[in-house]
Amino acid sequence: MAGNSFGNLFKLSTFGESHGPAIGGIIEGCPAGISLNMEAIQAEMDRRKPGQSAIVTQRKEPDTVEFYSGIFEGKTTGTPIGFVIHNTNQKSRDYSHIKDSYRPSHADYVYDQKYGFRDYRGGGRSSARETASRVVGGAIAKQLLEGISINAFVSQVGTLKLEKDFNELDLTKTESNPVRCPDPDTAARMEDYIKSVRKEGDTIGGVISCVIRNTPVGLGEPVFDKLHAQLGKAMLSINAVKGFEYGSGFKGVSMKGSEHNDLFNSDGSTKTNHSGGVQGGISNGMDIYFNVAFKPVATIIQAYETIDKEGNAVQAQGKGRHDPCVVPRAVPIVEAMAALVLADFVLLNRISKL
Amino acid sequence: MAGNSFGNLFKLSTFGESHGPAIGGIIEGCPAGISLNMEAIQAEMDRRKPGQSAIVTQRKEPDTVEFYSGIFEGKTTGTPIGFVIHNTNQKSRDYSHIKDSYRPSHADYVYDQKYGFRDYRGGGRSSARETASRVVGGAIAKQLLEGISINAFVSQVGTLKLEKDFNELDLTKTESNPVRCPDPDTAARMEDYIKSVRKEGDTIGGVISCVIRNTPVGLGEPVFDKLHAQLGKAMLSINAVKGFEYGSGFKGVSMKGSEHNDLFNSDGSTKTNHSGGVQGGISNGMDIYFNVAFKPVATIIQAYETIDKEGNAVQAQGKGRHDPCVVPRAVPIVEAMAALVLADFVLLNRISKL
Amino acid sequence: MAGNSFGNLFKLSTFGESHGPAIGGIIEGCPAGISLNMEAIQAEMDRRKPGQSAIVTQRKEPDTVEFYSGIFEGKTTGTPIGFVIHNTNQKSRDYSHIKDSYRPSHADYVYDQKYGFRDYRGGGRSSARETASRVVGGAIAKQLLEGISINAFVSQVGTLKLEKDFNELDLTKTESNPVRCPDPDTAARMEDYIKSVRKEGDTIGGVISCVIRNTPVGLGEPVFDKLHAQLGKAMLSINAVKGFEYGSGFKGVSMKGSEHNDLFNSDGSTKTNHSGGVQGGISNGMDIYFNVAFKPVATIIQAYETIDKEGNAVQAQGKGRHDPCVVPRAVPIVEAMAALVLADFVLLNRISKL
Amino acid sequence: MAGNSFGNLFKLSTFGESHGPAIGGIIEGCPAGISLNMEAIQAEMDRRKPGQSAIVTQRKEPDTVEFYSGIFEGKTTGTPIGFVIHNTNQKSRDYSHIKDSYRPSHADYVYDQKYGFRDYRGGGRSSARETASRVVGGAIAKQLLEGISINAFVSQVGTLKLEKDFNELDLTKTESNPVRCPDPDTAARMEDYIKSVRKEGDTIGGVISCVIRNTPVGLGEPVFDKLHAQLGKAMLSINAVKGFEYGSGFKGVSMKGSEHNDLFNSDGSTKTNHSGGVQGGISNGMDIYFNVAFKPVATIIQAYETIDKEGNAVQAQGKGRHDPCVVPRAVPIVEAMAALVLADFVLLNRISKL
Repeated sequence: MAGNSFGNLFKLSTFGESHGPAIGGIIEGCPAGISLNMEAIQAEMDRRKPGQSAIVTQRKEPDTVEFYSGIFEGKTTGTPIGFVIHNTNQKSRDYSHIKDSYRPSHADYVYDQKYGFRDYRGGGRSSARETASRVVGGAIAKQLLEGISINAFVSQVGTLKLEKDFNELDLTKTESNPVRCPDPDTAARMEDYIKSVRKEGDTIGGVISCVIRNTPVGLGEPVFDKLHAQLGKAMLSINAVKGFEYGSGFKGVSMKGSEHNDLFNSDGSTKTNHSGGVQGGISNGMDIYFNVAFKPVATIIQAYETIDKEGNAVQAQGKGRHDPCVVPRAVPIVEAMAALVLADFVLLNRISKL
Repeated sequence: MAGNSFGNLFKLSTFGESHGPAIGGIIEGCPAGISLNMEAIQAEMDRRKPGQSAIVTQRKEPDTVEFYSGIFEGKTTGTPIGFVIHNTNQKSRDYSHIKDSYRPSHADYVYDQKYGFRDYRGGGRSSARETASRVVGGAIAKQLLEGISINAFVSQVGTLKLEKDFNELDLTKTESNPVRCPDPDTAARMEDYIKSVRKEGDTIGGVISCVIRNTPVGLGEPVFDKLHAQLGKAMLSINAVKGFEYGSGFKGVSMKGSEHNDLFNSDGSTKTNHSGGVQGGISNGMDIYFNVAFKPVATIIQAYETIDKEGNAVQAQGKGRHDPCVVPRAVPIVEAMAALVLADFVLLNRISKL
Repeated sequence: MAGNSFGNLFKLSTFGESHGPAIGGIIEGCPAGISLNMEAIQAEMDRRKPGQSAIVTQRKEPDTVEFYSGIFEGKTTGTPIGFVIHNTNQKSRDYSHIKDSYRPSHADYVYDQKYGFRDYRGGGRSSARETASRVVGGAIAKQLLEGISINAFVSQVGTLKLEKDFNELDLTKTESNPVRCPDPDTAARMEDYIKSVRKEGDTIGGVISCVIRNTPVGLGEPVFDKLHAQLGKAMLSINAVKGFEYGSGFKGVSMKGSEHNDLFNSDGSTKTNHSGGVQGGISNGMDIYFNVAFKPVATIIQAYETIDKEGNAVQAQGKGRHDPCVVPRAVPIVEAMAALVLADFVLLNRISKL
Repeated sequence: MAGNSFGNLFKLSTFGESHGPAIGGIIEGCPAGISLNMEAIQAEMDRRKPGQSAIVTQRKEPDTVEFYSGIFEGKTTGTPIGFVIHNTNQKSRDYSHIKDSYRPSHADYVYDQKYGFRDYRGGGRSSARETASRVVGGAIAKQLLEGISINAFVSQVGTLKLEKDFNELDLTKTESNPVRCPDPDTAARMEDYIKSVRKEGDTIGGVISCVIRNTPVGLGEPVFDKLHAQLGKAMLSINAVKGFEYGSGFKGVSMKGSEHNDLFNSDGSTKTNHSGGVQGGISNGMDIYFNVAFKPVATIIQAYETIDKEGNAVQAQGKGRHDPCVVPRAVPIVEAMAALVLADFVLLNRISKL
């Protein structure tokens, strides 16, 4: 209700601020009897954690998940899975530069307005640190979704765009470079570009594409909880996301119906896939694919003008260890959110027929 | 849960198939004491109804709303508002062409797979007829939102694009032409284009832009129910939508943080508005603006190949009275869904502080 | 959220006031493929309707249900089932006696306080007329629950108590008398008693007992949505209910653990059933049984003192056609609510295991 | 959804098994700006904790709550409050006696049936240890409800019944004795009786009564979420509860309408209060009072017969440190659940009117 939960049947609730003692969450509705691969869960955490490469923030946090419930003898018990990730990197440092003034394009101002005051240490609840809990939920959802593959990758950084269709890419190469772009040449150029942006103390946006394969037919709950509507909400709920499109997306606008319609093969598959694996809000078994647009990170390591609580103009200076481009670390988050959406619909689909 | 409701506190649930006796819904959570303007509600219905101009479907349905509860002596009572719109145009015609075969890029196939069988008369539940109920809900939400303006308009049809910034447009002109594009020249060209597409028996996509003004600061419930995430879901739940972007959107990807950040004025407003009126998922009082991409309507008046239930290839022929381009009639639907999102957050915001 | 829906997966939402044009509702989450027996649904309505015998209100309303969606060719389609029951008996009579004053132990006063004003024609939303929609939902739930039997009956009227254990009763006799007490002798005494109370213009309370047989093991969702907690809420939500107990109930308080514990047979059934078919909030396959206490109807056909909106003392006189004792007509409502609870848990149980 | 959350706006979700590393939960929807009294929270925990007196279980657990989020500089921030209580008393002991056999009237059997297997160490999720998290939630809810008093007390143990009306009692004396009965004489007799039952290795049931004063008019959301229906569900969700009644309760059955109706005073209060402070599901400002029946604890320190997983008859022996009577420690749990219900309705009531 108050925005801290995602999902209906397979449901993740998260808590925690960036500079409190811990973040964490509860996963409800995970069916009993899943033999959990704990290493796989931690591996997802490691893909998201700070400090993993030269083009991401140099903060160091191990992001070790502690599970407190819902797992017994290696298997899910059907009861809620409570977990905690201790914040180990909250320095008792000076927050006065953000305590009394509002950082542009951050949530500082609106939190103060909405709640009357805010935890001003770092981003508090609005920090992307919260997404670590989403990765835990997504990692468990992925294990429920055995057989379905979810592969996100960076397809654009600034104006540098991977022009290939996803079918031409070898998605197993995504993890072979720090940018998480499966095309090595493009990845190298993106990496250089991100480094040059960082040198300026600036930041840059990007696009993550995601491909989901081997989805059963029938996922999605029309009319409001269409599969792509829930995917869209999931993606738009990630920090810094400004847009979502699936299948033909914004390009589909310029097509005629006679081109856009996906004709059937005899097995129910389609000859083309402008639909992006979803028709009428329900998966049709074809590859689901979508793009997610991320704006440039708001924290820049430059001087800027802003206001304090009383509206006085003040000078401020960005500092700290921040990502020059968010998309490399956001790849596992996109996958996690997609997994949460699918897990929920897989369970909901168990009740669609007598 | 099963996808037929939208909203948490201000909540619309809808029922109904395109060719059953009636569609309708329940609006829950509407506060008591709103003096309803019933003409304004019907006027919204009339903006969406078929047959209103030469460039939309020529079906005739009055779409008269009957209210059964929740309103007394002209005011909302705080109890659920039940309403019904009778389907007056369901001809007892021959559905055999769609009963036994699947229309490409429609929901026929996936409904059969998900539910085991389907109401094959027209689109059934997947028909955009259902959106009439959304317009009822949105029309009442608008009355709760007195003072906030929500203006949607057509900004692209096929490759014909309205290149002006929304601040340069006179949005009061949107209703002055059947396309619902506030720029008369562009509107005229769009109208001609839609007519030419219809002559081919084909269809074309489009984009609807929407601007929301005078929103209070504080709407949106992080971290999952961010204002733009809920708007995105709302828009993506509308038939034929393929993409959503707000503020700088997909273009923001190519910007640097130093350009993209919106610097503050002393009153908390910002000098630029790349954020699109939303920061950290919460409205900041600036104009909210977003774009919604619609694919071309799947029903074309041409011969096509498809399969029957057994997977045999069959020849079929599109027929009936359909929209060549969905965006003119979708403008009030976009507004309705936006109003539902805002109404919900306005109520939720009443409980954010002690 | 606002209290007009019941259930999570199998969910009934209702709307409607006693003297508006219609009441009705939406049933969401009913799986596709149930061949509905429409006569059975109307038969349940007839058990609840006014005017069916000499000991209930003499109002005449046919309570015919019109289904508008979710059913095609006699089967549920998996889409929401919208239905309406037109109010045919709202006389354009004089409501001035209740418009300006508050009937004692009715909801008039609290509705005015909570919502600022109220639909003063009859009970409005607080009228038991709303339960007709529950009976529709319950009648469909019963058809999903094929094989499970739900039998409610009157076990007490005033101080007249049916002292037999439910296992000694022939529950097929419940419908053989207007009181709905399966013991003919007790039923006859209850009937006479109710008639004598009516003659005084007074009313009397009663108890309904309910027995549910052939429930699968596993229904109920601990820790908050225990089977008996949901049953309790369901029953307490019925107009005039003051108490709920299941299994050993209030009498179990005086027992020792050594007496109360239900020892197992080798097949998992138990030798005694003080648990009432529920252990740890989950059905164990034994008979579920519970009691529901109803207070005397508040409308008495006598003169009484009360206050008007300004707090002035006024004299008033009860009139109209009302039930002298609510329990005979409440028997199908108790069954309907029990069916709604079970249907929801049957669906939820589909997702408890991998 | 899966039963681990309570409340709509003010919402508690809990996780944790009795013998895992920790239990805990998340409180969502708590408004920002409450200055929390942390000692008061721990004091509530201490009222529930084991080992506090001679008539409760002699296990020792400090039940210290650690808050991880949602509180900053002593005040609630409006973001979710995550908390954890470490289990410090889980001995690595031998569970073989319960691993392979089912304890009568426990949840062992039904958990195995529902989930396929279970955490067999102690009661796992079905243990009353989970209620410690409810007390945390309730303690914070109480601070939101400043001005409203919630007082539960033991009114019956076995057949020993406190016969006084709650208005004759001095409820400040409840904490003056280990039984938590505000009448010293009755308390002493109850204490002796519990001790004698314990000597037999047996257990006994009891009743907790609860009185809520100074509630505003208007709490409760008809028709399904009536105030007393939600209170009933809350109470029935507590371990070992078998019944709930409010106001006149089961005794009201035998009253006539003319006696039972509560006549108004000129200020809207009523001369009698058979309604128990709730009319039509909405608080009317009078004292809310209700009774909750608890069965005898199932764990007895005696030999008993039961079955193993294969259905073979086995002999077993109850052991460990258990409560001979659950009601003294359940008093703060009843208050906590009542506080959760009220906090939710207080917030919901903020949106009932324009």
